[in-house]
Amino acid sequence: MPSHTADRPPLSLSARVHDLHPSPIREILAVVGRPGMISFAGGLPAAETFPRLDGTSPTDALQYGPSEGDPALRARIADELAGLGLDCAPERVLVLSGSQQGIDLVGKLFIDPGTPVAVESPTYLAALQVFRFFGARFQPFSSTTVSAAALRDGRPAFAYAIPTFQNPTGHCYGDTERARLAAACGEAGVPLFEDDPYRDLAYDTVSRRPVCADLKGSPWIYQGSFSKSLAPGLRLGFMTASEEFFTLLVRLKQAADLHSNRLSQWLVLQQLESAGRGARMEKLVAFYQRKRDCFAAALDKHFGGLADWQAPSGGLFFWLRLRHPIDTRSLLPLAIERNVAFMPGEAFYAGEPELGTLRLNFSHASEEEIDRGLGVLAELVVDALNGRVQLPADADQRAVPA
Amino acid sequence: MPSHTADRPPLSLSARVHDLHPSPIREILAVVGRPGMISFAGGLPAAETFPRLDGTSPTDALQYGPSEGDPALRARIADELAGLGLDCAPERVLVLSGSQQGIDLVGKLFIDPGTPVAVESPTYLAALQVFRFFGARFQPFSSTTVSAAALRDGRPAFAYAIPTFQNPTGHCYGDTERARLAAACGEAGVPLFEDDPYRDLAYDTVSRRPVCADLKGSPWIYQGSFSKSLAPGLRLGFMTASEEFFTLLVRLKQAADLHSNRLSQWLVLQQLESAGRGARMEKLVAFYQRKRDCFAAALDKHFGGLADWQAPSGGLFFWLRLRHPIDTRSLLPLAIERNVAFMPGEAFYAGEPELGTLRLNFSHASEEEIDRGLGVLAELVVDALNGRVQLPADADQRAVPA
Repeated sequence: MPSHTADRPPLSLSARVHDLHPSPIREILAVVGRPGMISFAGGLPAAETFPRLDGTSPTDALQYGPSEGDPALRARIADELAGLGLDCAPERVLVLSGSQQGIDLVGKLFIDPGTPVAVESPTYLAALQVFRFFGARFQPFSSTTVSAAALRDGRPAFAYAIPTFQNPTGHCYGDTERARLAAACGEAGVPLFEDDPYRDLAYDTVSRRPVCADLKGSPWIYQGSFSKSLAPGLRLGFMTASEEFFTLLVRLKQAADLHSNRLSQWLVLQQLESAGRGARMEKLVAFYQRKRDCFAAALDKHFGGLADWQAPSGGLFFWLRLRHPIDTRSLLPLAIERNVAFMPGEAFYAGEPELGTLRLNFSHASEEEIDRGLGVLAELVVDALNGRVQLPADADQRAVPA
Repeated sequence: MPSHTADRPPLSLSARVHDLHPSPIREILAVVGRPGMISFAGGLPAAETFPRLDGTSPTDALQYGPSEGDPALRARIADELAGLGLDCAPERVLVLSGSQQGIDLVGKLFIDPGTPVAVESPTYLAALQVFRFFGARFQPFSSTTVSAAALRDGRPAFAYAIPTFQNPTGHCYGDTERARLAAACGEAGVPLFEDDPYRDLAYDTVSRRPVCADLKGSPWIYQGSFSKSLAPGLRLGFMTASEEFFTLLVRLKQAADLHSNRLSQWLVLQQLESAGRGARMEKLVAFYQRKRDCFAAALDKHFGGLADWQAPSGGLFFWLRLRHPIDTRSLLPLAIERNVAFMPGEAFYAGEPELGTLRLNFSHASEEEIDRGLGVLAELVVDALNGRVQLPADADQRAVPA
């Protein structure tokens, strides 16, 4: 059935969708469910860590509710955020339908075509996509060099950062880096949008104080998620912000989906208030810590000499740099053919990518799968280095060494 | 704590948020929970009609899932939509986090600043807000006069309509009106965005065939909701579209919230497949039908001579036109002060509003509250007509008769 006929005018789509590319995350999520697939892609938490959700939800949870979120949940979140040092009250907590929604709201709040936005590079892929979609021009910065002068020069509408267990690199800002980012944003008056979905998954003792906690008197937005500490299928996150943004964010949220799922809000509140929460979190962290250590050992075994990495002190990812860079986007279809999924690191860069990087999630696969899957990946890398595999023609092959 | 200091540059917000006004729906949802409030506002379904949600959800429902939605639910929805005459397959069903999200996605898909969009006027307030937010210029149309020639002249990016139990008027297009809209869009090649959240709430025998079912070969988007037939707190809806739009809509959905709540998806699927579904729907429709009839009787009692209306053959709203128009926005704060909430009809117009209209939800309040609440509203109208109440100074009072 033809969609267009000769005498019909062309469809008029928005300028922004012309730059709407498929998301590698989405394409990969579509295949990770395939039987036998070992997935190092996505940030899939281990199903073993999910809480038991039971109890009978109140009828109230089935009705429409306030856009800001359910009052009891907002109060609980505010308490916890204030405990982290953030200037947060229940009236300035916005419950989100997952923290991806927060990124969409912030994009809508700030970005017109051509708006400069300061981002770490590499950074969370789906944030880059949303910001780009609204028309952002990226100004990459790094935690070691960011300064008020550079921000003043570039005049970005905001700076986006994941200081704690960064995605994709796993890097956790030290105190000096945190202070540097706070000072740069504060002095330049550039709002900081701090994305903090991994903070509960800490395996070593490191500084995790929100950078926004030290942005007294200057504008900021902070968000977190229950996807990593509870369950992603509940699609629940939260946001808080300095005064000038909050009301606008609530209105944007209302226009996006009226309000978040109330059953999830109720379930999450039960979990946050549950006496067993501390023990569950300890167990969860210990579980992931073992996974990380096991993954590190398997990396030593398979990638020793092939790549460099640092075991992350939290979060869900190892970040690998191949010693002889290959555009790992070209390896992905070969890996998937052999039932191993990973994220090419190149996709996470705001500008020209550094080639030869891989983001490997260690939390989802079993220990046996980790060993087998990393074995397959290392083999593919070696084969590519030796010219023994045919890299797909449509991939960027500039950097495949001879 | 000051947010701006003298030497700090002004915040740079997107052009679109300058037109971001508070939503009357949101402001009202914030007060309807107040004890003792009688709410004729919102489209709040009666809590008595909510299904019992039980059973143990599979662990799977807590994990990340595909942006399009869970395959079993998509297949079930596709079956039902095909049964309504729509050209729909499971691969072209997108599960939404409520149908408000569909409106956001369509706004993103089509609207740049200045893009013409054809809309019924009055129409769903929150759709107008979203479209306006993305920069739409409205071209109002009506089911009785819409034509291909007019659409060709105006060249709207799409036409938005709620043909079945329209919000706010409750109007249900007859066969002639459905055919007229289909012909106009089809011949002009203007995509139709058909919003159909109320179709299951039919109290009389009327035509409910989706207009998109007769748009063979021309572009369309159709969406529905589980908020009215199941429970709004689950925040679940669905969308299907002709080929050319579907992939783009999935990408937009992925960027907005990755995917919809999987627990809700599982619960809704259980309900759709439940043996008791037919009986539950019959009971629900009978329940609302009784409410409608009771509301109609209370209107006769309190508003006879003051206003005109038609009992709706479906949906959730009565639409009143006062015989002596008062801007009912000015009545709202007085009504809320007396614990009665309603929606001023003026808010639903795309352009210059017709004054003296009210949208009254009949499904939420109890029979006793309906009688009492309508009594209060009628009293306020009479008092305003007689100059016995002080209308707020900031309301548009042009049309308050002397």
